[in-house]
Amino acid sequence: MAAPVPSMELLARMRRGDRVALGRLISRAETGLEEARAVLSEVYRTAGRAHVVGITGVPGSGKSTLVGKLVERIRADGRRVAVIAIDPSSPYSGGAILGDRIRMTDLALDPGVFIRSMATRGSTGGLARAALAAADLLDASGFDLIVIETVGVGQDEVEIARASHTTIVVSAPGLGDDVQALKAGMLEIADIHVVSKCDRADANRTLADLKSMLALAASLAEAPLWQVPVVATSSQTGQGIGELAATVDQHRSVQQSTALGEVRQRHIAEYRALKTAEDLLRSRFAASGNVHLAALVERISRREIDPLAAAEALLNTTAF
Amino acid sequence: MAAPVPSMELLARMRRGDRVALGRLISRAETGLEEARAVLSEVYRTAGRAHVVGITGVPGSGKSTLVGKLVERIRADGRRVAVIAIDPSSPYSGGAILGDRIRMTDLALDPGVFIRSMATRGSTGGLARAALAAADLLDASGFDLIVIETVGVGQDEVEIARASHTTIVVSAPGLGDDVQALKAGMLEIADIHVVSKCDRADANRTLADLKSMLALAASLAEAPLWQVPVVATSSQTGQGIGELAATVDQHRSVQQSTALGEVRQRHIAEYRALKTAEDLLRSRFAASGNVHLAALVERISRREIDPLAAAEALLNTTAF
Repeated sequence: MAAPVPSMELLARMRRGDRVALGRLISRAETGLEEARAVLSEVYRTAGRAHVVGITGVPGSGKSTLVGKLVERIRADGRRVAVIAIDPSSPYSGGAILGDRIRMTDLALDPGVFIRSMATRGSTGGLARAALAAADLLDASGFDLIVIETVGVGQDEVEIARASHTTIVVSAPGLGDDVQALKAGMLEIADIHVVSKCDRADANRTLADLKSMLALAASLAEAPLWQVPVVATSSQTGQGIGELAATVDQHRSVQQSTALGEVRQRHIAEYRALKTAEDLLRSRFAASGNVHLAALVERISRREIDPLAAAEALLNTTAF
Repeated sequence: MAAPVPSMELLARMRRGDRVALGRLISRAETGLEEARAVLSEVYRTAGRAHVVGITGVPGSGKSTLVGKLVERIRADGRRVAVIAIDPSSPYSGGAILGDRIRMTDLALDPGVFIRSMATRGSTGGLARAALAAADLLDASGFDLIVIETVGVGQDEVEIARASHTTIVVSAPGLGDDVQALKAGMLEIADIHVVSKCDRADANRTLADLKSMLALAASLAEAPLWQVPVVATSSQTGQGIGELAATVDQHRSVQQSTALGEVRQRHIAEYRALKTAEDLLRSRFAASGNVHLAALVERISRREIDPLAAAEALLNTTAF
C-alpha cells in the first residue's frame, strides 16, 4: 500500500484549487489525525477572509431547501460558496443521513460550490471542532461564504450554528406544537430570522408571532447596533431569497464597521478553545493507558465513591 | 433573611418523606451548590435500590402522554414512581417548556408520584450530572421506579436517556421524513422499542419497519442475553401499557440474573464520571480568575495561535 500523502502536500494542492485534496484534509480534521495538526494550525492563522453563516431550525422548517436556494443566489453574484451540513446520525454507526443533501446534487457540479456532510458522532465536542476546522480549510481554499447548517435541536447543534459570524434561525408555519417547542432554545441566538414556506396561507401568523416577540425583546433592550430582522422566504416562489442574501451582507458590514465584529470574533474564539479543550480531555481520559478511569469506574459501580469525587480524582491523575 | 436550611437537615427531612425537602435538594443539585455536595455523596453511596428507566423519542412521538399512562399503570401495582422530564428550553433564559407536563397534573396530586421538570440550560454536561443526581435523591426517597424522559434529539439528550437501567425509544406513525430522520441516532440504544399511537391505521407500517430492522440486526449478532422487543401501545385505548410495564420488569430481572446488570452499571458509572469531569473542567475554565483563558481568547481572535494550541495551553495552566 502506498504511504499516505503528507498533509502539508495536500495543503499545497488544496491551495492550487484541488478539491480532492480539500476533501481529504477535511476528513483528516474530522478523524482528528495528529498528522493534520500542523496544517490546521497554519490554516487557522492565515484564514479569516470568508464570512461564516450558521443556519439552524427545527425539523421540517425547510432549512436544507432554503440553503440550496441561498447558495444559487450567492453563486449568481459570482461568489464562491461552501456548505457544511451537519446531519443527525447514529452515534454508534456514524452513518450520515443524506436525505435533503441529494436535492443539492445539481449545485455540486458547479466548481464554485462545495458541499460536505458531517455526521453527528459519539463526541459532539469533536463535531464542533471538526466543523469549524473544516470552515478554516474552506476559507483558505478561497470560498467567500461558508454555510454551516445544523438541525436546531440539541444544545451542541444550536451552539455550533452560533459559532459563526451570522446566525440564521429558520421557522416555518404549520408544524406541530411539539416541534415548535423545540424552537425555544434557538430564537434568542438569531442575527436574522427567516420564516420559510411563506407561500402558505398560515405563514402570516408565524411572521406576526415572531415580530411581536422581537418587538417585545427590543422594548426591553437598549438601542442595539443590529436590529434583528425577520425575512419571509419561499423556496417555491423564490420570495425573499435575494433579501436574505442582502441581509447577510448587511450584517457583515455592520460587524466590520462597529464593535460587533470583534465581540463575535471573541465569542467564537472562546467557544473553539473550550470545545477543543473538552475534546482533548475526553480523548486523554479515553486513552487505553488510563488505568485511573477504569479503577474509578469500578469504585463508582460499587458505590464506594460518588461521581463527583471520582471526577476530581480523574482530573488530578490525568496528565495533560 | 433567614439562613438557608443546611442540606444535611433537608436530607434528614427528605428521608422522613418530606417532599418539599426533596424538591429543594434537587434544586441544589441542579444549581451545583457546593453545600449539597456532602449530601449527594452520601446519597449516591447508599442509593441503588430503584430501577431507572430512560424514555426518549422524536418530537411528536407521544412520549409524555405515554409516560403518564405508564406511571398510572405502575401506581396501580402500588409502586412509587418519579418522573424527571428534561425539557428543551432556552440556553439563555433557562425557562422550561411545560406543555405536556400539564397533562400530568392529576398524577401530581398522588403522594406516590413525584414529577419534576428540568430545563436544558447552557451547560449540557451539567444537565446530565444534575438529572442523575436527582435520580439518586429520588432513589434515596424510596421511589421504586424513576423515569427520565428526554426529547430524543441532540447527542446529550440521547446519552442521558441511555444512562439508565432500561432505555425505551418511542416511535410513532405519521411523522414527517425530517422528524423520522432524527431517529437514526436513537434506534440502536433501545432496550425496548415502543410504537405509540397504535390506534392509527398507519401504525402497522411503523411496526413492520422496526421489526424488520431488528431482525436484520439480530441476524448479524450473536445470541444476546436480551432480545430487544417492540411493544405496540396506544395512549388512547390503553393498548400495550401493561405489556410495557411488564417488559421493563423483565429487563430488570434479566439484568439481575446475568452479567448485563453489571455491564450497564459500569457504563453508567463511566458516563457519570466523565460528564462530571467535563463539568468541573468547564466551571474551572469559566471561573473569573482564569486569566489564561482571557489571554488565550485574545490571541486566538488575532489568529496568533490556533484553537488546539490554545486548548493545550489552557489544560496545562488550569489548576485542578
